[in-house]
Amino acid sequence: MEGMDHLAHERNKTEFDVDAMKIVWAGSRHAFELSDRMARLVASDPAFRKDDRTRLGRKELFKNTLRKAAHAWKRILELRLTEEEAGQLRNFVDEPSFTDLHWGMFVPAIKGQGTDEQQQKWLPLAYKMQIIGCYAQTELGHGSNVQGLETTATFDPDTDEFVIHSPTLTSSKWWPGGLGKISTHAIVYARLITNGQEHGVHGFIVQLRSLDDHMPLPGITIGDIGMKFGNGAYNTMDNGVLKFDNIRIPRNQMLMRVLQVTREGKCVQSNVPRQLIYGTMVFVRQTIVADASTALSRAVCIATRYSAVRRQFGSQDGGMETQVIDYKTQQSRLFPLLASAYAFRFVGEWLKWLYTDVTQRLQAKDFSTLPEAHACTAGLKSLTTTATADAIEECRKLCGGHGYLCASGLPELFAVYVPACTYEGDNVVLLLQVARFLMKTVSQLHSGKKPVGTTAYLGWKKASEDWSKPGVVLEAFEARSARMCVACAKNLSKFENPEDGFAELSADLVEAAVAHCQLIVVSKRKGEPDVTPATARGESDHHNKDEGFIDKLQQDIPGKGVKQQLQNLYYIYVLNLVHKYLGDFLSTGCITPKQASLANDQLRSLYSQIRPNAIALVDAFNYTDHYLGVGSRSL
Amino acid sequence: MEGMDHLAHERNKTEFDVDAMKIVWAGSRHAFELSDRMARLVASDPAFRKDDRTRLGRKELFKNTLRKAAHAWKRILELRLTEEEAGQLRNFVDEPSFTDLHWGMFVPAIKGQGTDEQQQKWLPLAYKMQIIGCYAQTELGHGSNVQGLETTATFDPDTDEFVIHSPTLTSSKWWPGGLGKISTHAIVYARLITNGQEHGVHGFIVQLRSLDDHMPLPGITIGDIGMKFGNGAYNTMDNGVLKFDNIRIPRNQMLMRVLQVTREGKCVQSNVPRQLIYGTMVFVRQTIVADASTALSRAVCIATRYSAVRRQFGSQDGGMETQVIDYKTQQSRLFPLLASAYAFRFVGEWLKWLYTDVTQRLQAKDFSTLPEAHACTAGLKSLTTTATADAIEECRKLCGGHGYLCASGLPELFAVYVPACTYEGDNVVLLLQVARFLMKTVSQLHSGKKPVGTTAYLGWKKASEDWSKPGVVLEAFEARSARMCVACAKNLSKFENPEDGFAELSADLVEAAVAHCQLIVVSKRKGEPDVTPATARGESDHHNKDEGFIDKLQQDIPGKGVKQQLQNLYYIYVLNLVHKYLGDFLSTGCITPKQASLANDQLRSLYSQIRPNAIALVDAFNYTDHYLGVGSRSL
Repeated sequence: MEGMDHLAHERNKTEFDVDAMKIVWAGSRHAFELSDRMARLVASDPAFRKDDRTRLGRKELFKNTLRKAAHAWKRILELRLTEEEAGQLRNFVDEPSFTDLHWGMFVPAIKGQGTDEQQQKWLPLAYKMQIIGCYAQTELGHGSNVQGLETTATFDPDTDEFVIHSPTLTSSKWWPGGLGKISTHAIVYARLITNGQEHGVHGFIVQLRSLDDHMPLPGITIGDIGMKFGNGAYNTMDNGVLKFDNIRIPRNQMLMRVLQVTREGKCVQSNVPRQLIYGTMVFVRQTIVADASTALSRAVCIATRYSAVRRQFGSQDGGMETQVIDYKTQQSRLFPLLASAYAFRFVGEWLKWLYTDVTQRLQAKDFSTLPEAHACTAGLKSLTTTATADAIEECRKLCGGHGYLCASGLPELFAVYVPACTYEGDNVVLLLQVARFLMKTVSQLHSGKKPVGTTAYLGWKKASEDWSKPGVVLEAFEARSARMCVACAKNLSKFENPEDGFAELSADLVEAAVAHCQLIVVSKRKGEPDVTPATARGESDHHNKDEGFIDKLQQDIPGKGVKQQLQNLYYIYVLNLVHKYLGDFLSTGCITPKQASLANDQLRSLYSQIRPNAIALVDAFNYTDHYLGVGSRSL
Repeated sequence: MEGMDHLAHERNKTEFDVDAMKIVWAGSRHAFELSDRMARLVASDPAFRKDDRTRLGRKELFKNTLRKAAHAWKRILELRLTEEEAGQLRNFVDEPSFTDLHWGMFVPAIKGQGTDEQQQKWLPLAYKMQIIGCYAQTELGHGSNVQGLETTATFDPDTDEFVIHSPTLTSSKWWPGGLGKISTHAIVYARLITNGQEHGVHGFIVQLRSLDDHMPLPGITIGDIGMKFGNGAYNTMDNGVLKFDNIRIPRNQMLMRVLQVTREGKCVQSNVPRQLIYGTMVFVRQTIVADASTALSRAVCIATRYSAVRRQFGSQDGGMETQVIDYKTQQSRLFPLLASAYAFRFVGEWLKWLYTDVTQRLQAKDFSTLPEAHACTAGLKSLTTTATADAIEECRKLCGGHGYLCASGLPELFAVYVPACTYEGDNVVLLLQVARFLMKTVSQLHSGKKPVGTTAYLGWKKASEDWSKPGVVLEAFEARSARMCVACAKNLSKFENPEDGFAELSADLVEAAVAHCQLIVVSKRKGEPDVTPATARGESDHHNKDEGFIDKLQQDIPGKGVKQQLQNLYYIYVLNLVHKYLGDFLSTGCITPKQASLANDQLRSLYSQIRPNAIALVDAFNYTDHYLGVGSRSL
């Protein structure tokens, strides 16, 4: 095919060692080899074909997913795959299904919140898939506000049981994946009531369907909540609705690792710190950031290859038309997304390190870094998922009309990705949490408390004239974020009731939080001056891969030219943000319009430097066409 | 239902006359009554139900569309609907189908480009739907670049026929709606060749399928190009692929209104001005701008009602939670979109006036305003469709998790809308055309040529110190756009070859074009100081409705409080743009960071003023639930 020749020609232009970059992207040789092996395994197995997925009606689509899930399980057992391998295999099957919730939420919830006894009873059943579980938290009327859940779990001391009940329409469980058609069990979150008193929201293991005939048990009403965005996409998942009519479960099916209810109905706190739950939240959000870079890189890979193959206009004397990747308008939209994919990859690795660090501290009962870790993961989850959702759609548009065809792989990728902006914390709500943390940090500056870690820059107390000196770009990001935080804090102080102020200024606060999170992406390195992280104390980090973008650039990186490419990508990411948020930077006075214009010239020059390497930079993601979902079976 | 109560309460808060606003939105009482009647007719007819559309497989979906198209045709004939009524009825059926192309492209192409004789032969057949036509222009390898089309139409003087041929794979016609399964005929665009010479791209009427058995005629290969973005959505359309193997058609099937080919194969220009074709382009793009405000208002209507019904957080003492529309974060995302819907509506009306004006001038052989009209429609098509596509997705996110369900109506609206950014001129390509027009205008300033109409502001030659004086917002928009245009022109002048400069600076040029187009939306009024439009000469405009936003605000508008609401919406639209493009404004020096901060405070205050009227402002769109596509049949 003509397209193949174009890419061969492109690959010949490459100025760096692509194989070395593949290792950098994957994180390690081990990670590269494992994912390479699993990706090929899936791509070569006709049972995992997905090129007809977008034209199936819901029923056929769902049956098809069940066949694939069963086949994947069969292969995992036949090949005796490790847990890591099995996870990667499911990842490359690339079709959301009830197994995601079973392995990703149901099992971890029992592990994290169940007592040893509960784990011994339930985990073996789950591991063999003799029961299939889902995670029933959100309700029709209650998404972000978990404390507002209405489902009740009332202890009945006469029978030693909990009574699970849905008192209203709005208390119906709504959204749980795997619930609508498949799950036999669920972790149900409900308000615990004993002796007429409320004790907050807790998790309960509830059987939903008969293990004999798969029918819902008496008193349980279940349904599928219907079609979701896009064809194929997330419609392979059976998101469900669930209502309880006074269902009874034994007392020992409340997950009691942190809080126990005794035979008499008394609540007893265990010695397991509640903060562990925040550790889990950090973990989940950290994986979402990693997933963002994956989704973004898939979209960028498709759009970059298309842009190199596609020619339009510019033909002279009947010669070939110009490759669209050579247009500056295309470059200025595409290359910042390519740079973002790499930037998010590295900040994701830094978050992995942060999670390890926090976990070690939690185990040592050191909760000091938890608020900052929580703010980091919340903010980066929001920043990277919003940027990725927008970027996938931009990549689709960069493929012109062809991006509108499902055969481009992009429509389904968009539709399946966008819920990441809402689930596990709505992105705006999360930014407000970050803003709250920032405002608290700023307010403590007066009392002499030194901010640490990612907020250390807030403590510099630069006078505003300092911000206007021509400094390096990083300082501009720090000055911008500090100025926005301080301005918000100042405006807040004008309100008598701080909560009223927070509500009134929330849109500004969200912008300050975004500026702070962008600073993390461009600056993050382990061991900030003011904090001694666990790793610096020699407690972990035996390999050197869990760090941010800027750290990478200060190391030797094996492979010809790899470092140069990463440097170019870094500056594209940074300068593009300066361009996009120019109003913030100019308001801060840390750069002048003249400097902004020069930065723009530099950005254009960087695009030219990246251009010959663009195809190789997406080849480094090492994606199969199967995984990219390009092409479709003829109709 | 609980939701109904909430909205009743909201409607009681309204501070203006909603019925009067409905007339303002519709454009006239006549337009309101007609669309109201047709919308109800469709909504009350069970044959037009669309609440199961998103879960159907492609085949069922398509059959369903055929049933609806046939039913619509039956009702149009039974009720003896006028052309205007029939168009509105099809609009409210709200399901893309081959009839869109038949009525919207095939018939108009024959009317616009066919000779009287050709019209007499073909139009009656088309009007009775005895033939069904599509519009075959784009090719697999050629979208935006129409001059690059490869299909050939070679005149054979021996037989007095044209030979239509697809010489390559990339010359396959690709995308035409209605082609894949339905059309019997097509207007095919091909390179005209006579006597061995090329004469550019022209349109030909070609029969594709037998009128007896609907099979493709010999030498013609047709297929459906497969699934497109989203479920339901545009998959009700049979976009197709078409290849010709030396198909012969009689000479009189070339559309010859502008250029004729004689029996001897000579090309003869008629006395019909070629510029008429640009007039058609202005017409089509003008309707796209009107459609943008419609699509945007649908999304905003859904998101606003949801935001008023949905409650989350903020409950105190077990009371009701806070309506999410009361959060400033929600308002700052939603209300600018509501304001945009109104702004685009009014700029669309201004474009309608512009089209009428241009048409009258063309008929009088006055081509002087054509370049400006072309730039206006190209730019506004790009600006409004990009903004609308983004806004629909933002509205979807504003509905939280529920926006991801097809039952919200938003996923399908997004998927069916987004191609507007690509078809009828890719949005970036169009902005480059605007930029080219602007650069030409700026370059002529030196030669003393006075810019007119929408570019008049470029001729003010303000010294830069003028830009920094605190002026009204409108002046800031003018200063910003002028500064960006002049800066681009200055940078262009540094290049030896202007085309190289244009290519290198294209991303900056696109930004200047956007600034110019935003100025049009915020400033547009009939009769700019430097130009005497046709209407001012008393040639048209017997009613007073075809004008921009700012004109509306300077008139008496009937209905209590209507004008006040429009004023608030105007300033929300304007100040939100200042906030979003703050870097441009600050770089221009036309406002200071302090002023920007004050503008932000004013914006917040406007949100509070709009808040109690938000539901009534979307009620003024007068949309049925059927049209909004909310709700879904249970599974």
